[in-house]
Amino acid sequence: MSDAAPRPAPEVALQRYLHAHMPISGHLGATVAEATPDRVRLVAPLGANVNHRGTAFGGSISALAILAGWSLLHLRLQAVGGSWRIVIQRNTVEYLAPAESDFEAECAAPDPGEWERFLAMVEVRGRGRVDLAARVLSNGVVAATFAGRYVAMRLP
Amino acid sequence: MSDAAPRPAPEVALQRYLHAHMPISGHLGATVAEATPDRVRLVAPLGANVNHRGTAFGGSISALAILAGWSLLHLRLQAVGGSWRIVIQRNTVEYLAPAESDFEAECAAPDPGEWERFLAMVEVRGRGRVDLAARVLSNGVVAATFAGRYVAMRLP
Repeated sequence: MSDAAPRPAPEVALQRYLHAHMPISGHLGATVAEATPDRVRLVAPLGANVNHRGTAFGGSISALAILAGWSLLHLRLQAVGGSWRIVIQRNTVEYLAPAESDFEAECAAPDPGEWERFLAMVEVRGRGRVDLAARVLSNGVVAATFAGRYVAMRLP
Repeated sequence: MSDAAPRPAPEVALQRYLHAHMPISGHLGATVAEATPDRVRLVAPLGANVNHRGTAFGGSISALAILAGWSLLHLRLQAVGGSWRIVIQRNTVEYLAPAESDFEAECAAPDPGEWERFLAMVEVRGRGRVDLAARVLSNGVVAATFAGRYVAMRLP
């Protein structure tokens, strides 16, 4: 029998991390619906993120997608092991339809080839970049697509 | 002598509008440093927008730039007159350096040719799109560049 407290579910652990270290995620009202190395889903309420038209502010949509990509890479690198620093290098967001209700940013695993290329780059240089795609859904409609390039550095 | 209350400075009016209609702008701590049809500068504190590395979160940088572009177009269309709806269609952000202190998003007027093209499009179709550029500065360093495409519709 162990005295260690039970480890929280990955969703709980990620949400605690985000709210503790990136306080704006709490103001966005971001909650973690799914947190695996293959898929991250973050949800935010319309209320905190509403704009002058009663739909979700583009800046909030963009921020939630950036967090989803960051979180996916964070979880994949936890699975790899070691200490890492992750930064975003660039992103593009296409706003396709107004988000008229609560919205969700879903980031999926990169293509296996893209991930292999990333790991090979890290092996040689101690850092690598990876392109991640996410989409933001509201009421089943794709409100936005997101493409982000992240750089991860292995720390000593 | 008029009974009308004095009109607030454009900076005060814009800040009130943003905080009232896009509540996340208040959580970002966004304040309006300059608000003219030729330049908008919005400032945000590091504290509310800090990330796990002690620098500004990319999503906050992105959101402040989106707001700066929206605000510039809002002010230019106020000068044109009439009622308008402004939406963002796409944006790209390049994160060039960490923002290690309070940061500012500065959006300048589009090229005169770009603006004429926009007004001509509105004349024909009642709506037009315009590309705006902004940069985000922190401690005199360009932390990010932003390119946004906005669409404005003239309302009846």
